[in-house]
Amino acid sequence: MRIGVDAMGGDFGPAEAVPGAVAACRDFHLAITLFGDRDLLDPQLEQAQASGLDIQVVHAPTWVSADEGPVQALKKKPDSSIVCGMQALKDGTVDAFISAGNTGVLVSGSMLLVGMMPGLRRPGLVALLPTLKRRPLVLVDAGASVDPKPEQLVDYAVVGSIYAEEILKRTNPTVGLINIGAEPGKGNELSRQAHQLLQAAPVHFIGNIEAREMLSGDVDVVVADGFVGNVILKLAEGMGMGLFGLMAAEMRKSTWSRLGGMMLRSRLLGLRAMMDYSEYGGAPLFGPRQPVIKCHGASHQDAFKNGARLAAEFVRLDVVGRVQSRLQEVAHGE
Amino acid sequence: MRIGVDAMGGDFGPAEAVPGAVAACRDFHLAITLFGDRDLLDPQLEQAQASGLDIQVVHAPTWVSADEGPVQALKKKPDSSIVCGMQALKDGTVDAFISAGNTGVLVSGSMLLVGMMPGLRRPGLVALLPTLKRRPLVLVDAGASVDPKPEQLVDYAVVGSIYAEEILKRTNPTVGLINIGAEPGKGNELSRQAHQLLQAAPVHFIGNIEAREMLSGDVDVVVADGFVGNVILKLAEGMGMGLFGLMAAEMRKSTWSRLGGMMLRSRLLGLRAMMDYSEYGGAPLFGPRQPVIKCHGASHQDAFKNGARLAAEFVRLDVVGRVQSRLQEVAHGE
Repeated sequence: MRIGVDAMGGDFGPAEAVPGAVAACRDFHLAITLFGDRDLLDPQLEQAQASGLDIQVVHAPTWVSADEGPVQALKKKPDSSIVCGMQALKDGTVDAFISAGNTGVLVSGSMLLVGMMPGLRRPGLVALLPTLKRRPLVLVDAGASVDPKPEQLVDYAVVGSIYAEEILKRTNPTVGLINIGAEPGKGNELSRQAHQLLQAAPVHFIGNIEAREMLSGDVDVVVADGFVGNVILKLAEGMGMGLFGLMAAEMRKSTWSRLGGMMLRSRLLGLRAMMDYSEYGGAPLFGPRQPVIKCHGASHQDAFKNGARLAAEFVRLDVVGRVQSRLQEVAHGE
Repeated sequence: MRIGVDAMGGDFGPAEAVPGAVAACRDFHLAITLFGDRDLLDPQLEQAQASGLDIQVVHAPTWVSADEGPVQALKKKPDSSIVCGMQALKDGTVDAFISAGNTGVLVSGSMLLVGMMPGLRRPGLVALLPTLKRRPLVLVDAGASVDPKPEQLVDYAVVGSIYAEEILKRTNPTVGLINIGAEPGKGNELSRQAHQLLQAAPVHFIGNIEAREMLSGDVDVVVADGFVGNVILKLAEGMGMGLFGLMAAEMRKSTWSRLGGMMLRSRLLGLRAMMDYSEYGGAPLFGPRQPVIKCHGASHQDAFKNGARLAAEFVRLDVVGRVQSRLQEVAHGE
């Protein structure tokens, strides 16, 4: 098994991607292929003391920035790290691909280059969100498709359910539609239409849920359009970390509170880790026939390392294959 | 000055609305008119020992539930508490109206019954969100208009800016558009179009901001479509309270952590109060020519009490009049 890593993607480029990939190779015994500009990668590899490890470099002299149009990028930059990586995924020289780069390119590349699994209209990003019950919920779509059709939300409900069953081992997972009120007629045009379609879908649909209720952990899968899903993901991330930051500042304010903070330290660190999204290593993109993991744009090396581990788990467990065959069962009415 | 209170709206009806209104009358010396079913209100008034206070009751024998269509409700239920209240606002027998009821009726009632201030296409809900800098940001629209046109987001940017200047005393307040990426081309169709329009709008537009950055407190006004804005508001609320709940549970786990918790108690309670949305008393609806305050559906009596106080402040400061004349200045290019 070989994991492809886009070494140029993300806010920090090779400076974080390369040491993260090296750590994944060393600690998890993974074979890694880095895609990127060899001139920039080699010094990073040297610094990370990568010699002797099973790390290959595919020279990709250009890269795609966050604001480039995806279809343009696919056409005009075949030698970019992200496009080379997706091409390698299609060719089978890597078994999974992780990138902290342009989400749009990963989505379009899945459709135009790698090829889609049958039964899905467009890719959806699957994110795990921590809940108060300490068992994550599955959020789809977390940002792949920002103006979806109502039918896509049904696809995402099916993918999310299968993911919850197969990977999180939930029995008959419940699916909620994110909305701004409990009643079926609430929400915008998209959510009203999706609500109707979901009632007839082969999932355990429990109706609309409001963002406030998500974190209770009472629902297994939450379906959202990619714009709303991405806002949810980022707000949850910002609030989780922000509140711990505020709390740390409060604790530093007096000797007394500093002492109290020390007594709570291990418990608070546990909670903080629970809220830390970099632990999850990234969000799998469902749709492409081979595993693609989208890492956070602001990924540091730990996130790349965890992303590579997640990608390897996806290959080992054949998650994509399992979702694909379950999708076909669903399509054929089981 | 007289504040109208929808005594039937919200999840708990008169059982919370009436004691909340009574407390506002007693503690803030406000004249209150309650709209609702007299048979249900009278026992609550008696229980709250309201005799001698300046509280009138307008008998409204029906009420509108959360799932009723707003235009239908306006037509078919002229004797409902929420419609009677808005009619009284139009007639001038009350100076402001607060309700924890159906948002759609407040929006449609503003347009069809009370009348809109010139320069606004549709009403927008203005919510204040706590930030890490301990100064709230202004979020518009927090849930009034769920499928807005791009032009509406410009209106909301203007209203939010005026609110930040006039009420929060911010100088040249910055306005961000909630989006899923920093670049102008990012996001869904609505946000791409709104971004373009906002660049030419008479506000201090600083571009897209991601949900993660909202809480930093670096931006004064955040513009969102009502669906996304409502999701943000409710998620922030759920997360804030949820995390404090988790923390309290951690603290109870050992004598040592309980002691640490006690030492931090006052500081944590301060933080918790900062995150508690019921402190704000509700979200003003901008658009109607008279102040309308939307209270949280799950409002308890404190929220009604604070909502009535907020409504009174709106009347005292003539917030609606000030926003209205600033809107006209903006429309005439100042």
